[in-house]
Amino acid sequence: MIRLLRVKEVVAAKAIGSEVIVAGWVRSMRDAKELSFIELNDGSMMGNLQIVVDKNNFSYNDTLREVSTGASIKVKGKVTASVGSGQEIEILASFISVLGSAPNDYPLQKKRHSLEFLREISHLRSRTNTIGAVMRVRNVVSFAIHQFFQERDFVYIHTPIITSSDAEGAGDMFQVTTIDMDKKGAGEVDYSRDFFGCKTHLTVSGQLAVESYCIGLGQVYTFGPTFRAENSNTVRHAAEFWMIEPEMAFYQLDELMAISQDFLRYLINAVLEKCPQELEFFNERIKPGLIENLRTVATSNFSHMTYTQAIDVLKNAIANHGKVFEHPVEWGIDLKSEHERYLTEEHIRGPVMVTDYPKEIKSFYMKLNDDGKTVRGMDILVPGIGEIIGGSEREDNYDLLKERMIAVGLDVEEYGWYLDLRKYGSVPHSGFGLGLERFVMWVTGMSNIRDVIPFPRTVKHCQF
Amino acid sequence: MIRLLRVKEVVAAKAIGSEVIVAGWVRSMRDAKELSFIELNDGSMMGNLQIVVDKNNFSYNDTLREVSTGASIKVKGKVTASVGSGQEIEILASFISVLGSAPNDYPLQKKRHSLEFLREISHLRSRTNTIGAVMRVRNVVSFAIHQFFQERDFVYIHTPIITSSDAEGAGDMFQVTTIDMDKKGAGEVDYSRDFFGCKTHLTVSGQLAVESYCIGLGQVYTFGPTFRAENSNTVRHAAEFWMIEPEMAFYQLDELMAISQDFLRYLINAVLEKCPQELEFFNERIKPGLIENLRTVATSNFSHMTYTQAIDVLKNAIANHGKVFEHPVEWGIDLKSEHERYLTEEHIRGPVMVTDYPKEIKSFYMKLNDDGKTVRGMDILVPGIGEIIGGSEREDNYDLLKERMIAVGLDVEEYGWYLDLRKYGSVPHSGFGLGLERFVMWVTGMSNIRDVIPFPRTVKHCQF
Repeated sequence: MIRLLRVKEVVAAKAIGSEVIVAGWVRSMRDAKELSFIELNDGSMMGNLQIVVDKNNFSYNDTLREVSTGASIKVKGKVTASVGSGQEIEILASFISVLGSAPNDYPLQKKRHSLEFLREISHLRSRTNTIGAVMRVRNVVSFAIHQFFQERDFVYIHTPIITSSDAEGAGDMFQVTTIDMDKKGAGEVDYSRDFFGCKTHLTVSGQLAVESYCIGLGQVYTFGPTFRAENSNTVRHAAEFWMIEPEMAFYQLDELMAISQDFLRYLINAVLEKCPQELEFFNERIKPGLIENLRTVATSNFSHMTYTQAIDVLKNAIANHGKVFEHPVEWGIDLKSEHERYLTEEHIRGPVMVTDYPKEIKSFYMKLNDDGKTVRGMDILVPGIGEIIGGSEREDNYDLLKERMIAVGLDVEEYGWYLDLRKYGSVPHSGFGLGLERFVMWVTGMSNIRDVIPFPRTVKHCQF
Repeated sequence: MIRLLRVKEVVAAKAIGSEVIVAGWVRSMRDAKELSFIELNDGSMMGNLQIVVDKNNFSYNDTLREVSTGASIKVKGKVTASVGSGQEIEILASFISVLGSAPNDYPLQKKRHSLEFLREISHLRSRTNTIGAVMRVRNVVSFAIHQFFQERDFVYIHTPIITSSDAEGAGDMFQVTTIDMDKKGAGEVDYSRDFFGCKTHLTVSGQLAVESYCIGLGQVYTFGPTFRAENSNTVRHAAEFWMIEPEMAFYQLDELMAISQDFLRYLINAVLEKCPQELEFFNERIKPGLIENLRTVATSNFSHMTYTQAIDVLKNAIANHGKVFEHPVEWGIDLKSEHERYLTEEHIRGPVMVTDYPKEIKSFYMKLNDDGKTVRGMDILVPGIGEIIGGSEREDNYDLLKERMIAVGLDVEEYGWYLDLRKYGSVPHSGFGLGLERFVMWVTGMSNIRDVIPFPRTVKHCQF
């Protein structure tokens, strides 16, 4: 018996003359006089395998009638050098069986479909070139993330999804409960009756939890789903998305900057190396210049400026280059997307790391600089997307951290465990966060987050 | 400047005579007359690095006073061959600085602590031998899972965590909401006001969703958190745990059995190869015979019997070997843990794959055999744990699947998208599920699921 091969294997082997069995879905079928040409795709690669059918060998009524776009077929045949353009090899079929037909109402007939339409059939859209390519890139990025950290002896920590903290400050949260809301009467909920005996939510970040394992295992990362209940119906917001958050003991801001830069380059190189067909497709159909942009980032040294320098650059742009921003520029402001994009796209024309932000606009856990005004935060801005990574050295001084927590209104009792990490064997440590979807959007050129998530969850949308 | 090295690097390099800088946490300190010995651990490996301190070189009051168990220190010194037993090298310190002291109330003083006690300080317990070792094994297993599937060109699919399905049948679910439950009055909830505009829950399995991407990408897997709101306070139940669910197009039961077996062996070999120190520790302290058991499984062919044969074996055990089971044995019963363990531990004395179960005791999506009574389900049972993997060939016939869904009371409308996978280009396909925690318990010998999860979530417990 011949083993069923994947299209990718057949194309790679180019074993002209050998007999193979392949199976997959019919992308299209074209009839000529004596021959039919089937474009077969099995998801193992971007491209299709051309199946050549000598109609004299087949009973049209029995088999070929059901070979339509969307049908699944199994093909036995001989590998031959292709005379047509677009492929090196093709299969001269000796036997075809239809595994599953596709009725005429199959929604993915051969033509271009809008991404909006594809979202309505998310359960079928992996059979399209675009979504198939996106998911393969997402896969390569996800694995490269693990490889990067495993090569450096980091420990992958699954931080909790359900949390009793309700104030990590990163955004609105979803509540998790087993109380039957329909039957609940008026008045406050008695949470002692809830599953966990307290009010619980879905996590917005694994950072605080992963810090705890960092102060013990040294170098750790979490990579899992995070949730925001923000009522934002934009192309960049999803309620459920995946985040990578490494945390490194004994790393200070300099080392954080170095590893963040290495990390981004590593991921881009992985995509350039493993997804050439997909990138060609995105470069041609979705975002011209994409590959060149990625190559530039992968080979360039990231620039560095402090927040204070960035404000000066922006002010200078207004004063001397006639640049107009919607939002005013003053030391102390939170940089808006328009400011970030000016810095990376027009001023630096490449990736830039901005550090040392005013403490008021950053999280309580960032380490205070000696000036007492700024913290050792770091954002990495890249052309085409703006902020891609946010991180910081963490405050490792017990008293300063506690002071800061009180200042921002956190319950010091509830976060006692987090303070303990500074009470017992505190060490300098740093970490950053990367949103997987934002990265995938960047390297594919896709402009809507809904198209880089298998089944996106957004305001009023939770189908499938 | 000398780069800070991790203990693992220093031990591996054995660069006698070279000057190094290391940092980590003091596990213990022992005073001799002229010398002090510090056991330093930085989480990069199981073992400690011995730091030898010539007290004549140090001002006791300034530095050594604060070098206590739990404190974090940075050490500069020379690598020397160790005269003591237990280590090949040690560091003769020339400089020590205390990064963070540990007051006397540090909970992890040098002595053995009960696992129960450690659970109460989950934020500090990664600094212990046991939990550190568990988390390194968990990390190796998690990465090996990705490697296994990536080497075989599977695509990692992040299936959704929040779902509008409420009847996947695998267990009680947690509800997810943004409705303010405290302020909600009496009466039924108006879900059009909820974030997603409908009632939503946390997923109990990614299988149905990943099947959708399988019918398009061919070979896929999901690896993410899943949730059960079961009110079971046992050593094996957690409300939040991680599952691996691969799904393979064109795979039938035989191929499913083959890849499941390869997968388990691959994971065990990864742990045997990458965690020898950890396994020695578990073998000695937690579960004698562990390593031998794992080696046996990694090198043996898994046995195979049908459910019908298994029932015969159990009946024979009762009739002819005086075996007593708590639950009666009759064709049609769901095998209980005691039955599974008899099969794998006493009858086969090794891993066994049981297939072709009565349709009534298995999920609606399993493919019906020609006998009309049994389905192509497969459970893998292993000594010491019982069921470790559950899988099946999936029903790929539209009419049969629909019939089965109606029979078990599923809303055919709601699952229309799942039926579509059989309507358009249906293919034979199979998949399985492995619970990460159950696997980690097996390979470490840990008996409580709470000790293999960084921050476990169980009934009434959601701290940190």
